[in-house]
Amino acid sequence: MRQKKYILPESEIPTHYFNIQAVMPNKPLPFLNPATREPLKPEDLYPVFVEECARQELNQTDEWIPIPEPVREQYAAYRCTPLVRAYELEEALGTPAHIYFKNESVSPAGSHKLNSALAQAYYAKKEGITNITTETGAGQWGGALSYAAKKFGLDCAVYMVKVSYNQKPYRRSIMQTFGAAITPSPSMSTRAGKDILTKNPNDQGSLGCAISEAMELALTTPNCKYTLGSVLNHVCMHQTVIGLEAEKQMALAGEYPDIVIGCFGGGSNFSGIAFPFLRHNIQDGKKTRFIAAEPASCPKLTRGKFEYDFADEAGMTPLLPMFTLGHTFKPATIHAGGLRYHGAGVILSQLMKDGYMEAIDLQQTETFKAGILFAQTEGIIPAPESCHAIAATIREAQRCKETGEQKTILFNLSGHGFVDMSAYDQYISGELQDYKLTDAELAKFMESADKLNA
Amino acid sequence: MRQKKYILPESEIPTHYFNIQAVMPNKPLPFLNPATREPLKPEDLYPVFVEECARQELNQTDEWIPIPEPVREQYAAYRCTPLVRAYELEEALGTPAHIYFKNESVSPAGSHKLNSALAQAYYAKKEGITNITTETGAGQWGGALSYAAKKFGLDCAVYMVKVSYNQKPYRRSIMQTFGAAITPSPSMSTRAGKDILTKNPNDQGSLGCAISEAMELALTTPNCKYTLGSVLNHVCMHQTVIGLEAEKQMALAGEYPDIVIGCFGGGSNFSGIAFPFLRHNIQDGKKTRFIAAEPASCPKLTRGKFEYDFADEAGMTPLLPMFTLGHTFKPATIHAGGLRYHGAGVILSQLMKDGYMEAIDLQQTETFKAGILFAQTEGIIPAPESCHAIAATIREAQRCKETGEQKTILFNLSGHGFVDMSAYDQYISGELQDYKLTDAELAKFMESADKLNA
Repeated sequence: MRQKKYILPESEIPTHYFNIQAVMPNKPLPFLNPATREPLKPEDLYPVFVEECARQELNQTDEWIPIPEPVREQYAAYRCTPLVRAYELEEALGTPAHIYFKNESVSPAGSHKLNSALAQAYYAKKEGITNITTETGAGQWGGALSYAAKKFGLDCAVYMVKVSYNQKPYRRSIMQTFGAAITPSPSMSTRAGKDILTKNPNDQGSLGCAISEAMELALTTPNCKYTLGSVLNHVCMHQTVIGLEAEKQMALAGEYPDIVIGCFGGGSNFSGIAFPFLRHNIQDGKKTRFIAAEPASCPKLTRGKFEYDFADEAGMTPLLPMFTLGHTFKPATIHAGGLRYHGAGVILSQLMKDGYMEAIDLQQTETFKAGILFAQTEGIIPAPESCHAIAATIREAQRCKETGEQKTILFNLSGHGFVDMSAYDQYISGELQDYKLTDAELAKFMESADKLNA
Repeated sequence: MRQKKYILPESEIPTHYFNIQAVMPNKPLPFLNPATREPLKPEDLYPVFVEECARQELNQTDEWIPIPEPVREQYAAYRCTPLVRAYELEEALGTPAHIYFKNESVSPAGSHKLNSALAQAYYAKKEGITNITTETGAGQWGGALSYAAKKFGLDCAVYMVKVSYNQKPYRRSIMQTFGAAITPSPSMSTRAGKDILTKNPNDQGSLGCAISEAMELALTTPNCKYTLGSVLNHVCMHQTVIGLEAEKQMALAGEYPDIVIGCFGGGSNFSGIAFPFLRHNIQDGKKTRFIAAEPASCPKLTRGKFEYDFADEAGMTPLLPMFTLGHTFKPATIHAGGLRYHGAGVILSQLMKDGYMEAIDLQQTETFKAGILFAQTEGIIPAPESCHAIAATIREAQRCKETGEQKTILFNLSGHGFVDMSAYDQYISGELQDYKLTDAELAKFMESADKLNA
């Protein structure tokens, strides 16, 4: 019988996170204080962030950061996650390509997000924090943080982008089941939310706005810190457990990937699968291609600009050097809520600029078509976000069919879609719309970033 | 680091199903033709059932039935499933008991049901069948059969109990994503459905009625066979892969269960976890207790009678010797749709009668409370059905706390609850009601069975 899954024992759960900053030929540019334009030091981030996370964020020297044992112990509930050979998807496509996927959907919260949530909650607890807060788009990150907070005995408050709050009631219930308090954003509970609702009472929210609200709560609540589920360097680093495991598992399969693919919102799951392999491009002359799959409605890597910009809508964060669509960007209400963010992580933006990775943009109907083929062949109904990675994988596999090349493709299945079935329903009934950001919209949103770089 | 999960490689996927009929001290009584009261032979079941399944159904001699390689190959998408030590549930309860669970929620359809669906679809395909049909309550079995049918190239039509069709739209979408056609039952598409709707246009359906409709479709459609997801002997036998794996995994953990627990609808997941261990009670003098956890609203084992009864509402099936509440039983609309069936499987009924197993009944609020504690400690949101097994486990663990006994408890986590979040929502908001079958209701429903045994 052919081997379908490559499994590692719990003893192989990584002991260290891989900090790609330490090996990047061009280090990321500094975060800037928006008022003084001075580069930030870790201490400048302490008021908002857990201190250990702030130090990791700006650590450009240590290649390996030890994973605390209590975090590894929590990882053991679901890690090591399986690496799976997608034989039946290959057969359905008639491709000579070998397709593998790393199945992060098996985590308690249903996605890779828990890899960082557990680390952040642990560090918070260790520093004597009692409350953590965050934003969530699709609800994947919020669900993960809710669970992680419960595991380490913290109270958790989540601002959930309003369109997702209404589109995805099951995700809200998941967070509540794990014991968190959920507020739809924009809300009247913060000044940032009030300002937005005053301008537009029907505002459906954005990740940028929800970030502003959560940050404001952290700054105005004693013993409360803010946590983020993507974009930031320490979050991307926590996700490298994905690729570190995958590297060992690919070796068990006797293969090494020619192409590595992840969907792309702020960059966390992409970083997780890509960085451990990318280090071999940097250090060992490997030639793997890294492809980020983003929605056509939110094309920060394919059509955004590399500029300093705020990470949130209200402009409360430091200025980050990143590919951005402008921090006032309002995304179309596609179902891949986790990909509706205006900027790319700082590390990823630098790697993109330096040609270490590429990006493509996809319409959502193509991604759901890919997701259904994947469900019917490999048996896992993917999250709408993950459908982008699958659609990009299928494009590459079809290219192999045309050229006859037997490439090895690895993608990250970032999460399952069991709580996104209404989106599948819409696709199946032919009601799902495509959205593409127009040039005029792009120019308008970019003004908010361009002004900061003038 | 303590070991959390016990994992077996794909090579350890069982090669044979365990047929407990061959080793039972008292064999199950025969199925009867309702008109002639003659015992049935396998051939009598061929018009409705896949022939191999009909032969397995009445096979009381072969202890081990080989699992076809194409079925094992499909099992490899998710098997062997993990056995997990519930350390954090133990700690939350402060119990000296060792609690283990077999995690069947990792299957593509989200529950153990796929174990039999793949076997039945494979046998159907091998016999040249092109269409299969079935009923589904909670949607777990329907989802599993939809996926299995797709894997073996069969068309699949599912009658879904109307209350679940409306309560669980996500389950419907899952079946459609896997490519099946879904009809809410009772429907006007069959004579059985029409009869019920004529009497009561607002009938919310029952498994018994949906079975009648699916059987009618099979009997009136060329090259179409009926499949069942529980109750029948061959279905329970297919599920023994669960316990066979668990036996090896418990050995890896260096333990043997004092108590084995499963939730109970028709008996399939209970059989799966119990039979392989129960054989050692029969053959090797082990003293493991086997506890079936059923809802107080549908207490066939705790309050039903052992009688001959129909397996469906309209009386189209053979007469089966089983613990029953009467085939006209109308269940309360509890969320554990998969447990709302009026009868217990024939093998299970005989084992119950002979004292090899016990049963308890539970109110649904107790089960959801248990499910939330499990989610917050072990990270998996359980299906409402599985919450019954968890609640029963917690009762036993608390008993150990009182007595100080360090018993080893194993339960089957039959499925996850990601598509049942509206039920959790109701529980969290305090809106969930308890239901207990009254003596008067029981007496009324039992008349339909009593008449057949007069």
